[in-house]
This record gives sequence, structure tokens and C-alpha cells, in this order.
Amino acid sequence: MRMTELSERSGVPIPTIRYYIREGILPAGRLTSPNQATYDETHVHRLTLIRAMVEVGEMPIAAVAKLFDHLQSKSADEYVTLGLVQYALADTSAAEAAAPDDEALVEVGDLLDRLDWQVREQHPSRAALAAAVRSLRRLGHGDVVDLLERYAAAAHELAEAEVGLVMRRDDLDGRAEAVVTIGVLGDAMLAAVRRLAQEDVATRILKEPKELRPSTPVKPGLRGARR
Amino acid sequence: MRMTELSERSGVPIPTIRYYIREGILPAGRLTSPNQATYDETHVHRLTLIRAMVEVGEMPIAAVAKLFDHLQSKSADEYVTLGLVQYALADTSAAEAAAPDDEALVEVGDLLDRLDWQVREQHPSRAALAAAVRSLRRLGHGDVVDLLERYAAAAHELAEAEVGLVMRRDDLDGRAEAVVTIGVLGDAMLAAVRRLAQEDVATRILKEPKELRPSTPVKPGLRGARR
Repeated sequence: MRMTELSERSGVPIPTIRYYIREGILPAGRLTSPNQATYDETHVHRLTLIRAMVEVGEMPIAAVAKLFDHLQSKSADEYVTLGLVQYALADTSAAEAAAPDDEALVEVGDLLDRLDWQVREQHPSRAALAAAVRSLRRLGHGDVVDLLERYAAAAHELAEAEVGLVMRRDDLDGRAEAVVTIGVLGDAMLAAVRRLAQEDVATRILKEPKELRPSTPVKPGLRGARR
Repeated sequence: MRMTELSERSGVPIPTIRYYIREGILPAGRLTSPNQATYDETHVHRLTLIRAMVEVGEMPIAAVAKLFDHLQSKSADEYVTLGLVQYALADTSAAEAAAPDDEALVEVGDLLDRLDWQVREQHPSRAALAAAVRSLRRLGHGDVVDLLERYAAAAHELAEAEVGLVMRRDDLDGRAEAVVTIGVLGDAMLAAVRRLAQEDVATRILKEPKELRPSTPVKPGLRGARR
């Protein structure tokens, strides 16, 4: 298909598509003449993936580019490749290196030991988790940190299903893309469904009791009797 | 304390503090002379909260400003106020208005009906969840969408504990801040612990079987016998 059709099919404006090609995150089309390139379904798919990362996952373009670098320079070892893809997703600004003896980082390490989880020392989510723990303690919300073991239990149960889905893909490319979609869109689904669940619980606590109260005023006689 | 001490205590550079005051997200200090202002613990706390939102939660300053607007213009109705704070957190670019008959949005509505969750129609996480579902289906990852009911069950269990913590705060200000910290830092904790759990599960699947295999080469005689 031509660029115009690629733009229509993907819903991405032509200048944005050209920008993605220049940045190397979308492969160039196949040249059919010096001024004409043709695109196929892989381009539509890649554009859908990029837009999901940027719009739903709110990832900066630089992070998307870094991720596709990892996807292109695949290692022979599947564990290493999928790990690098996941680390690229996890590598937020909060994951900046803290000193190894940082209190919150040690707390995270202790939690992982207690849970007997096998997680490499260089996993950026250790530092990201430590940053959240540190902020919560500084703000005096230590009781939110106390929820961490519950979060861990829930996360591990979901992870069994998620990794199962990843491994069901036929090849490494498919598995790497599943790591990306679960990492970006799975996180977005969970964050959204959490807020919806919180509203349901809050509604039940803050609204229902009122509605259950009798709407008729208390009888004057009764009130008088209590005096 | 003076501005210099506020900067040291909070770890936030003076120009950044001045910027926050100009933007109205940090209250100005109390003037002690025409050129001298003094700050107190509430300023240190607010700066810690702002930095957590920006660095750990990766929120843009405009979103932080919007949130503090909601915190300042409190409604008399606690349910409305806490809802507005949560909506400000949930209001991502993915939550842009979709047509009410949008397929993914209807799917989200059906899920909420099936779960019997009480969630207002205007909750921005409906659209955010629909955007993630839509992208996953377009990319051919419908099996990830199938995890949604599990995510919902886990999210609701955690929400009971989270809303419980919010309601344990003494006053509306404390409860509103807890909605913010659970929404921003709780989400960051869960996202990080999810990636750590995924690595643990992946390690067990991809690494352990190999290590269990005998590292000594198969005996030539045995191999010959199979021919």
C-alpha cells in the first residue's frame, strides 16, 4: 500500500509516520521507484504498537526507540532478550541508581529474599520500587508500604498467567511483543481497573449507609424520650 | 526556615521551588520582611509530595497543578471531593472521550455490570481501560484482554484494603492525600512488583529446567546404542 493508505489504515498522520521512519522505530517502505515506497501489514501493525505505547502507555518516543533497539539486537538467549525488553519498559526515571546500601533498596532486597523470588540484581524495578517505598515513608504513609506483601502476592498470581501467555507465542518475536503489550497495555488495564474498583468500594462505604438510613425525620416524641 | 534550608531539607533546587510557587502548586512562604519569607514543615511535606508525583509517578507538572486545584476547592461532599482527586489522577491522554457506542467502551460497561461494580458513567478510567482493550484487540492480543476478569478480582481485593487505609485518616485533607499517594505511589509499587514477579516466573520457566539437565555430555556408547 501507499503512504496515504498506511496513514488511513493506522490513523497516524503522514508527517508522524515519516518522523517514526527517520527515528528508526518504523522500518522504511520497499522502494518501487526512486520516489515511491510501498508498505504492508507489518507497517500497520508496528504503527498500532507504537501508538499504543505512546498514547495508552504514555511512553516517551525515546523510550519506544530504545525498546525497538532491544527487539532488533536479539541475543541468542531468549531469557536475556525478553529480560532486556522488560528492563527497557521498567526503566523509568525513578529507577535511577541508588546507593546499594540505600535503606529502601535494602528493604526491597529483603522482601525478595523473604518471598524467595529469583530476580537479577540489575533489575531496574528494584530501584523503582525502592523509590516509591522511600517517598511513602517520607510522607508518613508507612501503612501504604505495609500493603506491599499483598501487592506482591496478587502480582505473582497474575504473573503466572501473563508469562504463560508470553510462552504460548510461536517464536521469539511474538514472545517479545507479548512482553511489550503485557508490560504496557496490561499495566494500563490493571491501573484503570484498580481505579474503577476503588470507586466501587468507596461508593459502598461513603454512599450506601446514607441511603439505608430512614429518610423520614426522627419522631419528636422519640427524641424527647431520650432527653 | 529560610528558602535555603527548605531547599536542603527537601532536596529540591531553589529555582524549582520558586517555579512551583509561581505555578501555585506550593503555597508562598510567610513574609517576615519585604524581601524575606519563611517556610515551615507543611512546605517540606508538600515538596516531597510534588517530587514523588513528578519523579516516581512521572506526572506532568500541569497534571500536578490540576490535582492541587481539586484539593483546594474542596466540596462539602467527601465522596465528590475524593472522586475528583481520583479522577484527576486517572485522567490520562488515553481517557479521551470515545463515542458512547464505542465497542471497547461498551465491553468495559458490560464488565462493570457483570461485576456489579458501582462506578459513575463519567469515570475517566472507563475510557482508559477501553483504550487499552481496543489496542490489545487491534494487535491480535485478545488473550491478554481475557486476563481482565482476573485483574479485576485482584484489583477489588486490593481496593478494599486501600480504601480502608484512606478512611482511617482523621480528616478530609488526610484522606485526599492518601487517595493521591495510593493512586500515584501505590500504582508505582504495584507496577514495579509486577515486573519483579514476572521475572521470577520467567526465570523458573526459562532457566531452571536447563540447570536441572545433566551438565556432563551424553556417553558415546549410549548415543551409539540409539542408532
